[in-house]
Amino acid sequence: MPLSARNRMRGVVKAVEKGEVAAQVKIEISGPATLTAMITKEAVEELGLKKGDKVEAVIKATEVMVSKGE
Amino acid sequence: MPLSARNRMRGVVKAVEKGEVAAQVKIEISGPATLTAMITKEAVEELGLKKGDKVEAVIKATEVMVSKGE
Amino acid sequence: MPLSARNRMRGVVKAVEKGEVAAQVKIEISGPATLTAMITKEAVEELGLKKGDKVEAVIKATEVMVSKGE
Amino acid sequence: MPLSARNRMRGVVKAVEKGEVAAQVKIEISGPATLTAMITKEAVEELGLKKGDKVEAVIKATEVMVSKGE
Amino acid sequence: MPLSARNRMRGVVKAVEKGEVAAQVKIEISGPATLTAMITKEAVEELGLKKGDKVEAVIKATEVMVSKGE
Amino acid sequence: MPLSARNRMRGVVKAVEKGEVAAQVKIEISGPATLTAMITKEAVEELGLKKGDKVEAVIKATEVMVSKGE
Repeated sequence: MPLSARNRMRGVVKAVEKGEVAAQVKIEISGPATLTAMITKEAVEELGLKKGDKVEAVIKATEVMVSKGE
Repeated sequence: MPLSARNRMRGVVKAVEKGEVAAQVKIEISGPATLTAMITKEAVEELGLKKGDKVEAVIKATEVMVSKGE
Repeated sequence: MPLSARNRMRGVVKAVEKGEVAAQVKIEISGPATLTAMITKEAVEELGLKKGDKVEAVIKATEVMVSKGE
Repeated sequence: MPLSARNRMRGVVKAVEKGEVAAQVKIEISGPATLTAMITKEAVEELGLKKGDKVEAVIKATEVMVSKGE
Repeated sequence: MPLSARNRMRGVVKAVEKGEVAAQVKIEISGPATLTAMITKEAVEELGLKKGDKVEAVIKATEVMVSKGE
Repeated sequence: MPLSARNRMRGVVKAVEKGEVAAQVKIEISGPATLTAMITKEAVEELGLKKGDKVEAVIKATEVMVSKGE
């Protein structure tokens, strides 16, 4: 794994919604969870992201928060 | 769910490593995946995070990247 | 406080502007300051954010910069 | 204001804690709130940050989350 | 330099594309590289960003990842 | 390019400084600029980052700010 980002999760694109500049990608990861990514529309188009694609969600460790308790 | 952050994943704290200011928390989420969070040591202490705690990893959608292809 | 994010500021929603994917929320916090958040439109709709809502702005410590001098 | 970051809050440095690489700065902003920033130790030293300094906390809008409800 | 953000790169605005809320700014930095920034449309308008403007890209150190190998 | 992050800059590692949890990596990119990354010490060790390594700095577009004027 050549990138310093600590977190990678395999999943499948469930939905891609493009705005004029931003885009939202829903990724179904193993188990019941779904991840939401807000990335540039440009990235969606360059990667050719579409429903059904096998992808990885990549997240830098400094961006992960922890919640505990009710 | 009262927070705008789109992503929450339930998991169990596997390891907590504290530096002087930063701290690293490993969270085993369902399936084989493990998430790494870099948060303040202060947060680790206020939440009393320790191995075995049931927690949620919380991630804002703007922080999630997507990787596709090999 | 169950979330590791170190910063919470109470305020009132002053304006919500939705794009197709992104949304901008203006939050008047105590004092003359106003905070701007760019979050997903989906989050705005799930939280039902509208002008006048009492909310909290939540910010992870790793995202705060410090400026000093003129 | 020459920076695109939407959020600036004036405050006073209450505490600086340096790790080996990271550093934590507590900033008392007007009202009862205190902000926590995790920045590089290098930045703390280049800015000469110390208790009592008048500073501004600067936060990009994409990093602000919104919490609503109890 | 009064801001704790560690990274500044001088460049020239090559393109500005505005969505309803978000905006994308392409910055040609010295050498062949081009940086892409996603910021609020509001910031684009307040700074009056347009093609040909001399600007600086500013990036907090906690947001920079490192990739190595093929 | 398989990752949605819009920004990649080739460079050479100039310095690596490890704390207990965080680590700072200085990357000399082409031209006179140097980038600073704060990443986990774990990532530094897994990538085997050391002075002289050819690397890329990778930055998500939502993390880039723009500064204009004096």
